Amino acid sequence: MYKIYYSPGSCALASHIALAESGADYEPVRVNFQAGEQRSPQYLAINPKGRVPALVTPQGILTENPAILAYLAQTFPKSRLAPLDDPWTFARAQSFNSYLCSTVHVHHAHRTRGTRWADSEAAIEGMKKKVTQNMSDAFTLIEGEMLKGPWVLGETYSISDPYLFTISGWLGSDGVDIARFPKVNDHYKRMQQRPAVQRAMKEQGVSV
Amino acid sequence: MYKIYYSPGSCALASHIALAESGADYEPVRVNFQAGEQRSPQYLAINPKGRVPALVTPQGILTENPAILAYLAQTFPKSRLAPLDDPWTFARAQSFNSYLCSTVHVHHAHRTRGTRWADSEAAIEGMKKKVTQNMSDAFTLIEGEMLKGPWVLGETYSISDPYLFTISGWLGSDGVDIARFPKVNDHYKRMQQRPAVQRAMKEQGVSV
Repeated sequence: MYKIYYSPGSCALASHIALAESGADYEPVRVNFQAGEQRSPQYLAINPKGRVPALVTPQGILTENPAILAYLAQTFPKSRLAPLDDPWTFARAQSFNSYLCSTVHVHHAHRTRGTRWADSEAAIEGMKKKVTQNMSDAFTLIEGEMLKGPWVLGETYSISDPYLFTISGWLGSDGVDIARFPKVNDHYKRMQQRPAVQRAMKEQGVSV
Repeated sequence: MYKIYYSPGSCALASHIALAESGADYEPVRVNFQAGEQRSPQYLAINPKGRVPALVTPQGILTENPAILAYLAQTFPKSRLAPLDDPWTFARAQSFNSYLCSTVHVHHAHRTRGTRWADSEAAIEGMKKKVTQNMSDAFTLIEGEMLKGPWVLGETYSISDPYLFTISGWLGSDGVDIARFPKVNDHYKRMQQRPAVQRAMKEQGVSV
C-alpha cells in the first residue's frame, strides 16, 4: 500500500495522478497547509522539508515530483508512464519535468510564497509583480518549443503530462489566460477527460 | 562526439564532470555570459532557455542537469554513474538532484540573478539578504538527513555527487562556511581528488 501526502492545489497533484495511473493500491493523505500541518513534528518526520508531495513506498519515503514520477514509471512498467527502454526519450521527459520544477513552479511560487526568499514587504510585493510575465514567458516556450502534442512527448502519454496539467492549472490565478496557448489548452482539456485525473482530483476534493 | 555548453562557475559543471566520468568523447564549449552570449541567436538556437548546461548528443540537444545526469548514466552504463537496476535507489539519486535544482540552486540564484523574479531595486536587495540563511538551512538538511556519506547515496558514487560538489562550491560566495558541515566538506575534498573533476575544472579554466 502506497500513501501520497498532498495539499489541494499544490504540485502534489502531478504525483497523485501518476499514482492513480500506475494501478498501485494507495491512500491519499491530506496535509492541511492552512493549519500549518506541514511544519508539525509528525509531518516533518515524514518529509523534513515540510513540503508535498511525499510518497510512502514499501522501500521508504520519496519526495520531489520528478523523482516520484520516474520511480512510478519504473516500478509499474505495465502502466507505460515513460519510455523506459529509450534513454533519449526518457531524458526528454525528465528535462521537461526538471524545467517545470526548477523554473516554472519557482516563478509561480513568487506570487504566494515570497517569504521563502525575502522578508521585507517591498521585496515580497516586488516579486508578485513579475509572476504573470514570467509564467507567460515560460508557457510561450512550452507552447512553441517543448510540448510536441497531443502529449508532451508526442503521440505517447508519459509522466510529463500530469505535471504539465498540474502547473497549467495555476495559470488563471497567476493572471495568464491559458487560451493564449492553444496546444497547452488542448492538452489541459484532454487531461481532464482521463479517469486517473478525475479520480485524483475527486480524492483531493477539488473540481476538475 | 558530444558537446557540453558551459559557463565557468555555473551549475553546468555537474554535467561536465559526469560527462568526463562517462568515458564519452566530448568537446567543452564555453558560453561567455559576461558578453551576453547566452542571449545570442546562435546560442538560443541551441538552448532557447538561454541557460547552461546544454548537451549535444547524437540524438539531439538535452538541457537541465538532472535529465543530463540520468541520461549519461543510462547511456554509459559501464561508468556505473547510477544504480540502473534498482528503481528505489535511482529514485533517491533523482530526488536529491531535484532538491538541488528546484530549491538549493534557486536559493543561490537570488543573490546574483534577482532580476529573474523582480525589477525593483528594493526587491532585489531584499532577496540578497536571505541567501546566506537559505543556503545554510538547505545544507543543514543535506548534512543531517540527505548525504549518507562518503557519497550521497552511501558507499557508491553516483550522478548526485558531481551535482552536490558543484553547489557546495558556491557556499563560500553565499556567505556560508562549508566547514560547518563536516560530511559535506569531506565530500567536497574527496571530489577534488577525482580525475574527472580535475579534468572538467581544467577544461573550464577554473582552479580545483
